[in-house]
Amino acid sequence: MQQHDGPLSRLRRGHEELVLDLLRRNGPLSRGELGARCGLSRTTLYDIVGVLVANGAVVVHAPEATRRRRGRPVERLALNPGAGQAIGIDFARRAVHVAAVNVAHEVVGTASHPHGPGLPLAERIGIAERLVAGLAGDSLRLAALSAIGVGVVGPVPSAPGRPAAKTESDDQSATSVAPDADRTVTPDGALPPAVPDREALARELRGLFGVPVLVDNNTRLAALAESVWGTAAGERDVLYLRLSHGVGGGLVVDGGLHRGAHGLSGEFGHITVDPGGRPCECGGTGCLETVASVGAVLEAHRAAGGTAGDIAEVTAAARAGREPAAGVVASAGHHVGTALAAVCNAVGPGVVVIGGELAAAGDALTVPVREALAAGVLPFSRPLLDLRPAALGEVGAALGGIALVLHRSPLLSRYPQAPDSGEDR
Amino acid sequence: MQQHDGPLSRLRRGHEELVLDLLRRNGPLSRGELGARCGLSRTTLYDIVGVLVANGAVVVHAPEATRRRRGRPVERLALNPGAGQAIGIDFARRAVHVAAVNVAHEVVGTASHPHGPGLPLAERIGIAERLVAGLAGDSLRLAALSAIGVGVVGPVPSAPGRPAAKTESDDQSATSVAPDADRTVTPDGALPPAVPDREALARELRGLFGVPVLVDNNTRLAALAESVWGTAAGERDVLYLRLSHGVGGGLVVDGGLHRGAHGLSGEFGHITVDPGGRPCECGGTGCLETVASVGAVLEAHRAAGGTAGDIAEVTAAARAGREPAAGVVASAGHHVGTALAAVCNAVGPGVVVIGGELAAAGDALTVPVREALAAGVLPFSRPLLDLRPAALGEVGAALGGIALVLHRSPLLSRYPQAPDSGEDR
Repeated sequence: MQQHDGPLSRLRRGHEELVLDLLRRNGPLSRGELGARCGLSRTTLYDIVGVLVANGAVVVHAPEATRRRRGRPVERLALNPGAGQAIGIDFARRAVHVAAVNVAHEVVGTASHPHGPGLPLAERIGIAERLVAGLAGDSLRLAALSAIGVGVVGPVPSAPGRPAAKTESDDQSATSVAPDADRTVTPDGALPPAVPDREALARELRGLFGVPVLVDNNTRLAALAESVWGTAAGERDVLYLRLSHGVGGGLVVDGGLHRGAHGLSGEFGHITVDPGGRPCECGGTGCLETVASVGAVLEAHRAAGGTAGDIAEVTAAARAGREPAAGVVASAGHHVGTALAAVCNAVGPGVVVIGGELAAAGDALTVPVREALAAGVLPFSRPLLDLRPAALGEVGAALGGIALVLHRSPLLSRYPQAPDSGEDR
Repeated sequence: MQQHDGPLSRLRRGHEELVLDLLRRNGPLSRGELGARCGLSRTTLYDIVGVLVANGAVVVHAPEATRRRRGRPVERLALNPGAGQAIGIDFARRAVHVAAVNVAHEVVGTASHPHGPGLPLAERIGIAERLVAGLAGDSLRLAALSAIGVGVVGPVPSAPGRPAAKTESDDQSATSVAPDADRTVTPDGALPPAVPDREALARELRGLFGVPVLVDNNTRLAALAESVWGTAAGERDVLYLRLSHGVGGGLVVDGGLHRGAHGLSGEFGHITVDPGGRPCECGGTGCLETVASVGAVLEAHRAAGGTAGDIAEVTAAARAGREPAAGVVASAGHHVGTALAAVCNAVGPGVVVIGGELAAAGDALTVPVREALAAGVLPFSRPLLDLRPAALGEVGAALGGIALVLHRSPLLSRYPQAPDSGEDR
């Protein structure tokens, strides 16, 4: 029988979930008290509890001597306060970011370390290891770690012949990635070289930490994080756009990370907004990325006679209303709104979140975005538009790695083969 | 305790599913045999079976006298062969379509009846009732009907203050609809008048047939149907575009119908493709619908000196390569491909399905669509593009109504409040 397949294994996962939830809400319970609350047979309950104890999710409290009554002492079961910890790691282009949550799924720490472009992956993994060890010293017990979620640059398409990973059912299916490709897309349109591919990266980290590793595109993970801990916390349909050196994003659909059939969703940066415009790295023409990336805005600013040296200066000037920065940012914002309108008509998100370095321009960016967006969506969608700046900053994708892991429930992913039947009494 | 909420009610749904699956795979079983296979306590199992019998999903076979042994006779439980039947009804602009499936979820019949525009809803419901009765005479036992899925014209936004219905968890939440609005959008951008709203329509049909009624936009339902029974059967991520008097569509995401936060997804017809173009009914400018609807193509054909009277003649001429039809259809196809490229970059569907009257033009339409689509998507998405003509024709939305019902499991939707605990022995 396949794991995660068929009503019986779904049912067993439901049993686990129920037992964990009862312990979460009631505190420690005896097996008898648990049984009275969950409707499972003794045999099934003992079986489920046995697995949860073996997993480390549940601990058995020895009875206190003074509380003993007649017969055998009554053990009490409780959630393991050290279980359920998870780590997120983002291997960004020029930095490694890590974040960790405790069993209550509260963020207990984040850390970042910048590095030069093109650093070999082995060294970046070393940085990640040291950052995690630093967090562990404070509040994280690595022995209780459940899983790691990892963000990488570039698309995470599905491997040939396999469907793309699905958030709910198939997060651990093999997909290949290009974690250190410097560009999302090669000019000839081929997939970037998968060096090392997702499998190798996951294997490496699994070897280091001894827990399951899930990998996804880091911009998509940032989208997920904004919907879990960020500006769109609690929203179930979120469009996240990141205006950085590259332009990309992610969709959260009905509370889960959307990947698309081939793992190629959220490529908002390659929507055509200027058909007669300039060539894009991707091989296309007039893509949003050619007019709304950090590089494009800096170049337009220089071309307009501006003298600022970096994007922080340009966005600050735009915020202050100084030209040519304000005009350059407004033009980028107009194109952003146009591209987003097409996507909003198609997918109808509840919240649109804008992140990346350009978002620092504030209203200088978002007012023209909102105008173009309103002009391009169905009129009765206009009053429903909800545009917000991203809240999580540079550790967003690392947090998203954790969200990916929590959505997938690492405890369950280590669940052994479901037996074909339980015996009643 | 909320229905469909929390691990306990999910668990109870899992129990039902398990019992039904065991009976499906094993044939009739005694309660003891069921208990031995499902791991539930006697109390819980009797409870679950009681509900399934009350629902009509399971029937109790009286023991045969010759098989009696010692003690009480052993009843055997079996699936009710008449249960699980479902009906789909599409209240289209100028026709009513119905379809029905049996307990094995095989389509047992479809029927259509055209009518003039603006026919009052009461008369259209009357038509639906007669069509359903016609099907019932053949292969459908109305007494065993489980639920009805209904398609309506126009957007199905969520009611104020309530989240939009979600395919998996919340299909029966209230949303209002405009089943006989002649246009999707009113020129002033207001929501079309909700006469009668979804609640009233559902109430009416519920009164007639005595079963739960689910309502959604009929183009979205056609999208769902193509992914279940049509050209994209078995695909989990499908983009469906309908080029008819209106231009609209739907997204199937990870096997479920995508609705978006406000129930306003799939509005591909209102993506801007010609910013300097003509005004659209929706209040926008240069929407896809202004260049690729049946009306727009007929008008362009006339303007180019064509003499054909209806869209079937124009698409036939385009198929045969005759000008000006071929050029007019190619131009529409180019705009379709441009709009679809933006959506494909955003959501990455596995299959793009094109339906509606214009699809009859065949390659005269799809070749330019494919060209513009390939030019607009990320280069490494190009070899993955899979464009197919719709397969289900005019009954697609009625079939989609059934798919909506089956996804939602009508048996479970009639499940009573989940009790807070079962008692174990």
